[in-house]
Amino acid sequence: MKVLVVGGDGYCGWATALHLANRGYEVAIVDNLIRRNWDQLLGVDTLTPIAPIQKRLDKWFALTGKKIELYLGDITDYSFLEKTFRAFEPQSVVHFGEQRSAPYSMIDREHAVLTQVNNVVGTLNILYAIKDLCPDCHLVKLGTMGEYGTPNIDIEEGYITIEHNGRKDTLPYPKQPGSFYHVSKCQDSLNIHFACRVWGLRATDLNQGVVYGVLTEETGMDEMLINRLDYDGVFGTALNRFCIQAAIAHPLTVYGKGGQTRGFLDIRDTVRCVELAIANPAEAGKFRVFNQFTELFSVSELANLVQKAAQTLEMKVEIANYPNPRVELEEHYFNAKNTKLLDLGLEPHLLSNALLDSLLNFAIKYSDRIDRDQIMPKVKWK
Amino acid sequence: MKVLVVGGDGYCGWATALHLANRGYEVAIVDNLIRRNWDQLLGVDTLTPIAPIQKRLDKWFALTGKKIELYLGDITDYSFLEKTFRAFEPQSVVHFGEQRSAPYSMIDREHAVLTQVNNVVGTLNILYAIKDLCPDCHLVKLGTMGEYGTPNIDIEEGYITIEHNGRKDTLPYPKQPGSFYHVSKCQDSLNIHFACRVWGLRATDLNQGVVYGVLTEETGMDEMLINRLDYDGVFGTALNRFCIQAAIAHPLTVYGKGGQTRGFLDIRDTVRCVELAIANPAEAGKFRVFNQFTELFSVSELANLVQKAAQTLEMKVEIANYPNPRVELEEHYFNAKNTKLLDLGLEPHLLSNALLDSLLNFAIKYSDRIDRDQIMPKVKWK
Repeated sequence: MKVLVVGGDGYCGWATALHLANRGYEVAIVDNLIRRNWDQLLGVDTLTPIAPIQKRLDKWFALTGKKIELYLGDITDYSFLEKTFRAFEPQSVVHFGEQRSAPYSMIDREHAVLTQVNNVVGTLNILYAIKDLCPDCHLVKLGTMGEYGTPNIDIEEGYITIEHNGRKDTLPYPKQPGSFYHVSKCQDSLNIHFACRVWGLRATDLNQGVVYGVLTEETGMDEMLINRLDYDGVFGTALNRFCIQAAIAHPLTVYGKGGQTRGFLDIRDTVRCVELAIANPAEAGKFRVFNQFTELFSVSELANLVQKAAQTLEMKVEIANYPNPRVELEEHYFNAKNTKLLDLGLEPHLLSNALLDSLLNFAIKYSDRIDRDQIMPKVKWK
Repeated sequence: MKVLVVGGDGYCGWATALHLANRGYEVAIVDNLIRRNWDQLLGVDTLTPIAPIQKRLDKWFALTGKKIELYLGDITDYSFLEKTFRAFEPQSVVHFGEQRSAPYSMIDREHAVLTQVNNVVGTLNILYAIKDLCPDCHLVKLGTMGEYGTPNIDIEEGYITIEHNGRKDTLPYPKQPGSFYHVSKCQDSLNIHFACRVWGLRATDLNQGVVYGVLTEETGMDEMLINRLDYDGVFGTALNRFCIQAAIAHPLTVYGKGGQTRGFLDIRDTVRCVELAIANPAEAGKFRVFNQFTELFSVSELANLVQKAAQTLEMKVEIANYPNPRVELEEHYFNAKNTKLLDLGLEPHLLSNALLDSLLNFAIKYSDRIDRDQIMPKVKWK
């Protein structure tokens, strides 16, 4: 089966492209490499030294004999996207190709507008390309658990059955996104759902939690295939950042009280979840939503886990509570369902000391690349 | 109080700007006149001969001595918007300045993208302008009842209290928009709600039904103040279109079975609702939602009402069912609440033969301007 991985040069996209290629899918990558440019503009860099995409793909071919096509361009440019669809004729499209950082979207008005226009127009273009060029193609779109916010009731997978005044209906789960980036993901969900209802497209929205880890079977094959690992205040995410902070004896940066609970998953589960979604496509006209995480942790719990794992490596790590740059509840109810991917066969890699060890060791290995100035958050929500 | 009416050259915006000026508010209009350009590009025109905005405002001043400032420009251009805010220093912003036609948004990919980028970026810019320049300013934003779709449970005003697995929360009402235009309104609602939660802005979302009628106290003062009245397949809405069709003995164009039920209101209530929202602003940090309609009708019921009213004027009118260009349920449950504006003092102008008479007479008066080629819908949802 032919799978187009949009955003295939990014953290989740790169790992997914290689994984799918390794599992026998015919994979092509679409990317405009804008994320590398954003890093440069912000003066930040991945902990791990990632190779140029062309070199990555050459190495992958040399190691495996599997060719991954590369289409360099911007999906908000429809003529490029159309040409790519005509050339590759995808049967599945995995869409990671968005601005994916909440803090980035909150830098200022320009970054908020960039995030929403980029994400909404890119996804609209993909929907039109599928409708006009390959209407049977399955869209697997990366959403985020952050679309739901932190409601005081259980979070279901995309829809909720509501009884109200003696009547009943199953409706899209209410959204309370926590940044202009998270809003953009809700905006996408609305468009994709509409396209499925009206045009009969088939789509799966993967509302992903916070991804951690850096190694997958494929990216670990050679240093030239190494994945990016972000630790800066804009693109770094909780667990990855804590491990890198630990490696240089920087206090773990817990924002506020640290009671914020979120869904987490290992990047090895990200790639597997996408594979499961592709292998079990949505029916025509259906907009499926899967909550893609394996465990729930509060930020404080994560910090404590990293602290303990660091101690076993004889590293001394402090935890510090910093003023929260975000506007969010720091103590709240959070119970989200995640059975749909398990039902399809996902066998989670649970967070363990072993993983923390490997992440910590990675962080130590590349610790000379760490820029301490990039660790503290500079973007505030208000 | 100083009120900035964005989109003040449009159907609802023009009537509202004059009404507020008449009630003693200091009003300024922002408009880029793009709607007049869209008419030209589509080859359609309002039934009524509307004057240039400058002439309209000169006449208004001559008649009333009340000066309405005019700021010509595009709110997606932030430097223009910022200059306007600094010059006028609004205390309320009434935001009608969006692409407001569902069929227009469904013409093709370009029009879908234009609609969403125009609407989302314009509203984001207004939110940033309020936050940065006048954080106490009350945003009154025009939404649409079409955000809700046609759920099988009662439609509440913006929020619904859900009991689920023994817990309870009041959450944003689930949205099922029926076109890329309707999606854009949901996208706006997400951004405005977020800005209220995070920045403490105050906003009221007026989820308006289908507006009918052409005369208000102010626009009826002089033919130079006449409001637009659209009857074409792109910008025309149900009741207005039927009256104009009746005037030229064109069969009333009921799409599909005509069982589609929607909320309706007289344009004299639109202007009054906005006035009530402004006079009773939302608290800081609050995102209020009012459902702005006064009566529910199915499309068939409307057609029958127009047919009967036409008979009293000795006009013979047929009703015809045409293939529905939209994808929508033609028979469905629909029960929407609309008590919040009534509680603030709205006294509805209910649909009556008298109104139908006045609309029909208007249509007859200008019937030589009707282009029969523009009546049938040309834009299809799929």
